[in-house]
Amino acid sequence: MLVGNEFAMRTIGLSEIKSIIEGSTPEALLQCIEEAFVSYADGTATVPPVGHLGFTNPPGDMHIKYGYIKNDPYFVIKVACGFYRNQSIGLPNSNGLMMVMDARTGEPKVLLQDEGYLTDMRTAIAGAVVAKHLAPKSVEAIGILGTGVQARLQLQCLPWVTSCRKVYVYGRNCDKVTDYAANMCVHGFDITKCDSSAEVAQNCNLIVTTTASTEPLLVSDDIRKGTHITAMGSDVPGKQELAPEILAKADVVLCDSQSQCVDHGETHFAVGRGLLHPEDLVEVGTWIDAHLSRSQEAITVADLTGVATQDIKIASYVLDALELGDS
Amino acid sequence: MLVGNEFAMRTIGLSEIKSIIEGSTPEALLQCIEEAFVSYADGTATVPPVGHLGFTNPPGDMHIKYGYIKNDPYFVIKVACGFYRNQSIGLPNSNGLMMVMDARTGEPKVLLQDEGYLTDMRTAIAGAVVAKHLAPKSVEAIGILGTGVQARLQLQCLPWVTSCRKVYVYGRNCDKVTDYAANMCVHGFDITKCDSSAEVAQNCNLIVTTTASTEPLLVSDDIRKGTHITAMGSDVPGKQELAPEILAKADVVLCDSQSQCVDHGETHFAVGRGLLHPEDLVEVGTWIDAHLSRSQEAITVADLTGVATQDIKIASYVLDALELGDS
Repeated sequence: MLVGNEFAMRTIGLSEIKSIIEGSTPEALLQCIEEAFVSYADGTATVPPVGHLGFTNPPGDMHIKYGYIKNDPYFVIKVACGFYRNQSIGLPNSNGLMMVMDARTGEPKVLLQDEGYLTDMRTAIAGAVVAKHLAPKSVEAIGILGTGVQARLQLQCLPWVTSCRKVYVYGRNCDKVTDYAANMCVHGFDITKCDSSAEVAQNCNLIVTTTASTEPLLVSDDIRKGTHITAMGSDVPGKQELAPEILAKADVVLCDSQSQCVDHGETHFAVGRGLLHPEDLVEVGTWIDAHLSRSQEAITVADLTGVATQDIKIASYVLDALELGDS
Repeated sequence: MLVGNEFAMRTIGLSEIKSIIEGSTPEALLQCIEEAFVSYADGTATVPPVGHLGFTNPPGDMHIKYGYIKNDPYFVIKVACGFYRNQSIGLPNSNGLMMVMDARTGEPKVLLQDEGYLTDMRTAIAGAVVAKHLAPKSVEAIGILGTGVQARLQLQCLPWVTSCRKVYVYGRNCDKVTDYAANMCVHGFDITKCDSSAEVAQNCNLIVTTTASTEPLLVSDDIRKGTHITAMGSDVPGKQELAPEILAKADVVLCDSQSQCVDHGETHFAVGRGLLHPEDLVEVGTWIDAHLSRSQEAITVADLTGVATQDIKIASYVLDALELGDS
């Protein structure tokens, strides 16, 4: 066991990481992820393609996201695992860690053993950032598709950017919807359980999709004018939550990464069907950086597949909080 | 600081890792890396393309090699860094670590913070494995090009597979050659310092090249009949130690990975010039597995670029020694 060695990488565990994030102001976290979007879009980040390892017995996936932002003192390597039968043996399905390395010497610096928490959080904060910049001025009701970890975290971050507490939720599993409603009520939301995703769309002008669906849950006719949709679910090839016609109908289609979304986001299906030109996509970071705003009647869609700059920025944020960031 | 948390990844430091490797028999280490070659060649390993991150100020490289061998209980992610100005600030140029993860659950298991030692060792052992299977029956003298870490480690492992102790060495920097000779004498070698790489080749029938050269150090006419050359240096695009004509002249050209070597090994130049067909390459693992042997008059070349199975196998070896391997 390595203790006190001068080359030992400091390990920060989940509880310490959680207390840093939970002790932060929404403004600080929103700014952190806004900067992540912008650094990706304006090219100051170096982000190679995502590494992937697939397992079959039992089924699982490992993704490596890594990169650095110009002039940052460190670079970050994130390992994220999803093993979908873990729950049956009492383990969480997701796991992960981030390694922070010195960008001037290559030395290992800090191991953030966050068990996937930072990925969950940066993803949820990304949803709030997008809502801050894209949601209609007056959010009548928030629609949530899905009942999992992201369905909860996304909703918990939305009060940072909207005063709306009225929520319509749909999920395939009734018990999970009931659980979700009970949990979210505690956080001050007024939850209506819906029988279909169409019912959600009919009642809401800010919709967040967070499922692992592989076929569209929303079709074009479901979507009201003046709606913004953030599609979080399709982060790997094969996943799909929106009918491609929704993207064709939308006045603006945003994405976190043009190349990733065309490859495996919602955008992939719309581009593949000729309903959308890749050059019409606007990266979220470009939108933020240019201080663009929506027309209130517009339909806007943000397709988020997750980019390494979010991991880099949230890891840097934790390091700064630990006062390890400037060495 | 995370101590005693049930999810904490155990960290094994360099001194413990070193004592395991140094306490091993040559036979065990040779077998470990033989299995690495074979599992790569026979397709039982899943090895995605190497990830890379380049830095300019200061200049540096980070490579991620990762993968798993079918039915192994874990998978391995290796991070290797080379920052070439580190020595000027008193740090080693190379650094690295290996993460061992559970292949059935994705959980982080052990962090081998080996500072690049295991990469150096598996590379040196790979040279000995190749010499074991490819060196001429009677090694008259061993030729070494280069004076760095690999030049030392390669030579230190060769006595595992040959009784020859006569060595000819060439390096561009005279002081380093003198240092090298002094160091290697201690290990029982009879060292002759040469004024050129051609002089090395004229005197030796087992040659190991370990430089960071970007242009050929040996040309075809230098090479005697019955010589085996192991080219270790060209592990990234741009490096080259052998004139492509040597590969054309060789009776057998071996490689650790056909796809990698065609992309950026010595083979790359020979294939690019039309002097070698990729299908004529023999992967070292295939050679070992088929118990092939050389004709004594043959010229053979092994082009080694380094594959993740070597990292996986050496990491597994360390875990087994720690009795962490079977959980």
